[in-house]
Amino acid sequence: MNFAIIRYISGWAILAVSAFMLLPLLVSIIYREYNSALVFLLCTVIFGAIGFLLRLKRPKNHRFFACEGFISVSLAWILISLIGAVPFCVSGQIPSYIDAVFEIISGFTTTGASILTDLSVLSHGMSFWRCFSHWIGGMGVLVFLLAVIPALGGQGIYFMKAESTGPSVGKLVPKVKESAKILYIIYFSLTVLQVILLVIARMPLFDALCITFGTAGTGGFAVLGDSIASYSAAAKIIITVFMLLFGVNFNVYFLILVRKFKDAFSNEELRWYLIIYFAATAIVGCSLFFSAPKHFNLIDIFFQTSSIMTTTGFMTTDYNFWTPLAKCVLVILMFIGACAGSTGGGIKVSRFVIYAKTVKKQFSALTHPQNVKILRMDSKPISHEVIRIVNVYFATYILVFTFSLLLVLVDGFDLVTSFTAVAATLNNIGPGLEIVGPTGNYAAFSPFVKIVLSLDMLAGRLELFPLIVFFYPPAWRRN
Amino acid sequence: MNFAIIRYISGWAILAVSAFMLLPLLVSIIYREYNSALVFLLCTVIFGAIGFLLRLKRPKNHRFFACEGFISVSLAWILISLIGAVPFCVSGQIPSYIDAVFEIISGFTTTGASILTDLSVLSHGMSFWRCFSHWIGGMGVLVFLLAVIPALGGQGIYFMKAESTGPSVGKLVPKVKESAKILYIIYFSLTVLQVILLVIARMPLFDALCITFGTAGTGGFAVLGDSIASYSAAAKIIITVFMLLFGVNFNVYFLILVRKFKDAFSNEELRWYLIIYFAATAIVGCSLFFSAPKHFNLIDIFFQTSSIMTTTGFMTTDYNFWTPLAKCVLVILMFIGACAGSTGGGIKVSRFVIYAKTVKKQFSALTHPQNVKILRMDSKPISHEVIRIVNVYFATYILVFTFSLLLVLVDGFDLVTSFTAVAATLNNIGPGLEIVGPTGNYAAFSPFVKIVLSLDMLAGRLELFPLIVFFYPPAWRRN
Repeated sequence: MNFAIIRYISGWAILAVSAFMLLPLLVSIIYREYNSALVFLLCTVIFGAIGFLLRLKRPKNHRFFACEGFISVSLAWILISLIGAVPFCVSGQIPSYIDAVFEIISGFTTTGASILTDLSVLSHGMSFWRCFSHWIGGMGVLVFLLAVIPALGGQGIYFMKAESTGPSVGKLVPKVKESAKILYIIYFSLTVLQVILLVIARMPLFDALCITFGTAGTGGFAVLGDSIASYSAAAKIIITVFMLLFGVNFNVYFLILVRKFKDAFSNEELRWYLIIYFAATAIVGCSLFFSAPKHFNLIDIFFQTSSIMTTTGFMTTDYNFWTPLAKCVLVILMFIGACAGSTGGGIKVSRFVIYAKTVKKQFSALTHPQNVKILRMDSKPISHEVIRIVNVYFATYILVFTFSLLLVLVDGFDLVTSFTAVAATLNNIGPGLEIVGPTGNYAAFSPFVKIVLSLDMLAGRLELFPLIVFFYPPAWRRN
Repeated sequence: MNFAIIRYISGWAILAVSAFMLLPLLVSIIYREYNSALVFLLCTVIFGAIGFLLRLKRPKNHRFFACEGFISVSLAWILISLIGAVPFCVSGQIPSYIDAVFEIISGFTTTGASILTDLSVLSHGMSFWRCFSHWIGGMGVLVFLLAVIPALGGQGIYFMKAESTGPSVGKLVPKVKESAKILYIIYFSLTVLQVILLVIARMPLFDALCITFGTAGTGGFAVLGDSIASYSAAAKIIITVFMLLFGVNFNVYFLILVRKFKDAFSNEELRWYLIIYFAATAIVGCSLFFSAPKHFNLIDIFFQTSSIMTTTGFMTTDYNFWTPLAKCVLVILMFIGACAGSTGGGIKVSRFVIYAKTVKKQFSALTHPQNVKILRMDSKPISHEVIRIVNVYFATYILVFTFSLLLVLVDGFDLVTSFTAVAATLNNIGPGLEIVGPTGNYAAFSPFVKIVLSLDMLAGRLELFPLIVFFYPPAWRRN
């Protein structure tokens, strides 16, 4: 285990998160919230110094493998969460440190699950920090560092593997550093575009910024207590479209940028992503149309399916009152999630497509054993290793989900609440059903269950393996 | 597609089911229920004649592959269900034919889900037929035929593959016919032993027979409205133990018979089966002990976890009133199910063990890439093909489950009812939670949903692939 590199990476991550706190510091000053401003200033200085010191000495040994990559990334995420929670706690706006950690993990992992029963307790600075954490976490903290810090041998690819979403790593160009830069440029541009559109749709600038952070990271923290419900229809439509856009594999945008339009639009995962989205919307629409006309509102339906499938978690209506069929479709969308290589969570469309293809192949093989086909995605053969990893991912997912569910049930809440609480955290959505539904929150859970759900959010964001390796003792003993 | 063989096999299956109706005919005569007796007599004669004619001409072409095997077995099960339902319907005791088919499919597939709100509408003969169908379906109709009808080339192994449970076929001795005979001898002996013990525990003979059929097939149909609740504690303990015994891989009993005790007791699946059973019982026990002492009854807890894990579905208490954690453990047990090669349903312990081993291997590989281990079960390497099939099985299972759940939700029942209705039918348990809970039934569903759940029961009993191939048009087009 190369501890020097892990220390060095941790230092950079802490330094980065302290630097990011300068923005809410600025917001606090603008809104003359001097208490919050002081807290952010202190945090920036103290943690900035710690981070600076930790990364001062560059490691000599550059030996670095997947295992070190997983542990560095997990540790970095845990550290930035423990630090990111400090302002909430010190300012007294979220007095319990466990609650504050839950809230910021929910932010960084772009989950959007909240323990706050009343958003008005937060100052503008704190509210900004909470929403901004979605933007930071969306594309990944270490992917960000890859783009800005000096290269350290070839280990960058391991960070990308650990932090990007989907079954295979999304390098756009041969150099990892360049790939990371391009990703952040696309991310930043789409963010700016959405802010401008929302301001044109007459949303206040502060709200437009915060809501855009939540959309871009597919997070879901909002400024108002009713999430998106009280904004204009135009704003809702803009957010619906941008949630879908941020749920798309960023490779597609890169291909558009380099004018490979044919490759971009023939992306198989994108096609299935849209098919599933519109099919789900149609089922929800039919179900609501035929059984309870009073809940039938097209904007809400398109918004809510987009919000859940992209794992954002914004809401415009309390879907707890929808039909069981419509609710079930939402829960299924939670598991499917967005595209690989997007900022969205869930198991990812591409994994399900590969999974379904193995089933289809099996039935072809059973009926026509003489001509067995090779599985393909985007016309390229899928390697056995990718299929194996997808299968292991599902197996690991089922084990983690089941184990978490049993632990969450210790609190004694009903099955639907507990099941969707795990589904909504492990898939990084935010709201579930019943008590943790769109108008509810996670305040009622015990500290123990809050810790379990916090770990689920981290496990979901890092796609299981890195966090499990982090807690797997043999991983620390290797040399 | 070798239609001649499919016709021949169907004929034998129909003949067998008509012959089995002689037993309830006898029961009807003993209880002087002449209406029921007449119905059974007519069914035996008419369907017996049809079956006899269908199997009269032996097929010349013996070409026969997995695909034909799957289609023959599925068709045989569908035919015996359509025929087995006739007595209920013609006698007027279950007036709706769809209800009657649901009930007998539930019987043959050893599910035990009922559409009856009041068991007292059934005559003794009909009640016997309902329970006896569990015994017929438990070990498999075609496995039974294998033991008695003349051999037809090498196709027997395909029936066994389609009808036996678990990821690999359970041939005990090189000859399929001999294996089938041994299986039925063990099955019959255990059945007789349980009847004797129950009669010693002062259960009436009729009840002892019917309850034993339900235990042996891990079915769950009972004679009284409260299932097993009103029998003696001794009877409950005997049934608890026998449910567990019938959930064990019959290979273990064969090994004991041939005095290979070491091999029998070192069976890895058996070990995990017992570990999971006792762990589940412990969690349920703790949960009930600490939160609701009034529901804490050791016999009920041991009984209920045994009943659900072996996918029998008998009940001694209404576990709808248990804690959410205890209920969740039962639902998880529904999915795990019993051992491969037993009469139990569910996904099977061995599949989960293989699944978990692939996860464990992945983490060893991530942390120690230099020494990758080969997966083993009972000290023998697990072939890649078996691992692949287990993975495809889980994928197919998830797809079938999700699709069924969406269809069942069309009826508009709550999520827990709908989810557990699918879980309890696809895994062949019987009772679920809420409306389909232990004191409830499936009467409230629409005919459409009853058909969906009937297909789920068949799909679960035949372990998905055969029934899907049956409904997969390309399978019928091959030559």
